[in-house]
Amino acid sequence: MTGPRVVALGGGHGLFASLSALRPLTERLTAIVTVADDGGSSGRLREEMGIVPPGDLRMALSALCDDGEWGRTWRDVLQTRFSTPGPLNGHSLGNLLIAGLWERTGDVVDGLDWVAKLLRAQGRVLPLAIEPLEISATVEGVDGPRLVRGQVAVATANGIVSGLGIHPSSPHVPAATLESIRNADLVVLGPGSWYTSVLVHFLVKPVADELVAASDRTILVLNIAYDDVETSGADRADDVRALRRIEPRFRPAVVLADVSHGADPLLKVEVEAWGSRLVFANMKRADATDRHDVDRLAREFSHLIEELGAAGAPQGMRG
Amino acid sequence: MTGPRVVALGGGHGLFASLSALRPLTERLTAIVTVADDGGSSGRLREEMGIVPPGDLRMALSALCDDGEWGRTWRDVLQTRFSTPGPLNGHSLGNLLIAGLWERTGDVVDGLDWVAKLLRAQGRVLPLAIEPLEISATVEGVDGPRLVRGQVAVATANGIVSGLGIHPSSPHVPAATLESIRNADLVVLGPGSWYTSVLVHFLVKPVADELVAASDRTILVLNIAYDDVETSGADRADDVRALRRIEPRFRPAVVLADVSHGADPLLKVEVEAWGSRLVFANMKRADATDRHDVDRLAREFSHLIEELGAAGAPQGMRG
Repeated sequence: MTGPRVVALGGGHGLFASLSALRPLTERLTAIVTVADDGGSSGRLREEMGIVPPGDLRMALSALCDDGEWGRTWRDVLQTRFSTPGPLNGHSLGNLLIAGLWERTGDVVDGLDWVAKLLRAQGRVLPLAIEPLEISATVEGVDGPRLVRGQVAVATANGIVSGLGIHPSSPHVPAATLESIRNADLVVLGPGSWYTSVLVHFLVKPVADELVAASDRTILVLNIAYDDVETSGADRADDVRALRRIEPRFRPAVVLADVSHGADPLLKVEVEAWGSRLVFANMKRADATDRHDVDRLAREFSHLIEELGAAGAPQGMRG
Repeated sequence: MTGPRVVALGGGHGLFASLSALRPLTERLTAIVTVADDGGSSGRLREEMGIVPPGDLRMALSALCDDGEWGRTWRDVLQTRFSTPGPLNGHSLGNLLIAGLWERTGDVVDGLDWVAKLLRAQGRVLPLAIEPLEISATVEGVDGPRLVRGQVAVATANGIVSGLGIHPSSPHVPAATLESIRNADLVVLGPGSWYTSVLVHFLVKPVADELVAASDRTILVLNIAYDDVETSGADRADDVRALRRIEPRFRPAVVLADVSHGADPLLKVEVEAWGSRLVFANMKRADATDRHDVDRLAREFSHLIEELGAAGAPQGMRG
């Protein structure tokens, strides 16, 4: 296997974009995925089977399917949702496949490794923890602060998030998850729902410790959208400030922001306080949605891998 | 692709055995599967989604998975059933995968071809019809004849089956199903539940016509078990007689029976009335269950392919 060892952290569409951008750049790609989802098919499977919610893991696995017809079809099949008048309605095939492999193997990491093998996925998908997490947040609304529980509720609560917690507070983290960060030539954090997919990683102590230790090999990718409900009222400087408050020891080598945030003086102040390099690039999708364009993101990652010297790391030297 | 064009018809465990035995002998293998199941996961999916019951199709697809670790794992994964306290309980992953591809493609044959491709199955699986069938039977019990509806009810009804019907009586048969029989160098019918997996094919007129036309290229494999509930009280001579009654025009080239039926004079009489060759072989599994041993069955198929000249059919000459 060739290419730098790259670990990407996040969840949902943000992680799907970063993995899609990184997949052509290396054969040694690992995704670390948050496991706090409590909505939709994932939420129902979590409740019915007592399992880690598979939805974000499925998104990551589908991003790792190859670009041939076979791989593209698997990618689409994983995302296919049943539409029935009965209890299967809304379940995605990928969620059921993951749940089935867990039922079969009895082990979260083994099950995910097997799904990856069966799909011939180009990389590995690991969970942040091997037990479901519940996210809670203190949200400052017009009526003062209130405690909001559950990823869906937090992600859609109106108001500024002023505090973040998880339950259980010290979840069991697989050794493979910690090792993958420790051995990475490059760590990519974000984009994604800022609190529930990005910051949540710093609430899990051993993961936070590894991320802090990997700071000088880390690219933090800021979101593009201004209109994300989760961070409504906040700008990118607020996002960076929130991260610094949660984990003051973390100082990423590079902060990658979309050019649309180039006029924000506070963002520059926040990133300089870190001593990080602030890189602006045009990364918006041509369809003008506030999501990252995979090819543009890939081009930036390619440059940064070069600049950070991550590409030159000889195989098997670290860890 | 090499090897004779072989079509195997049936359902459930019997078809799984014949496909497993035929798979090493040819790369051009097609399964034709009955679609009348109304029990378990298949029955529930049929009801919830209005689809052809996928269970027997799944069994056939899993028999076509290759023998490497990857293929063997897919085979097992297809058969994995959920065990939950909720609505997913009892569903098999393979059934859900097939149902999902149907949802995605909107076409029964396309969907099955895609599942086969995704699993890198070594052959093709086609349905007897593209709409669910209901089997009904007249069963002679101690209280006289009664009408029994549904595959599960028929397969488990005590008494001798004296009549067999399907609803709808003229289901839509895919062209590919008819063509595969027409173009086959060899047709293998049975083993399997005699009425609901074997004889049912003759109730679908265009399929019966093709089977009649292919008689001289057909091996009929009789069941081993004496204690099958569906045929309790009947022996293999009764089974052959029932087939002759349902489709008098059908006269298979070879009738393959287990040596344990060698002492049955009536069987010989029935088969001779057909003008077919009656071949006895030791085909029981070593574990003494009344099922066909795959290797022993493969050995017989291999000999018979040779003897019938099916192996020598030049590619693309027929049809």
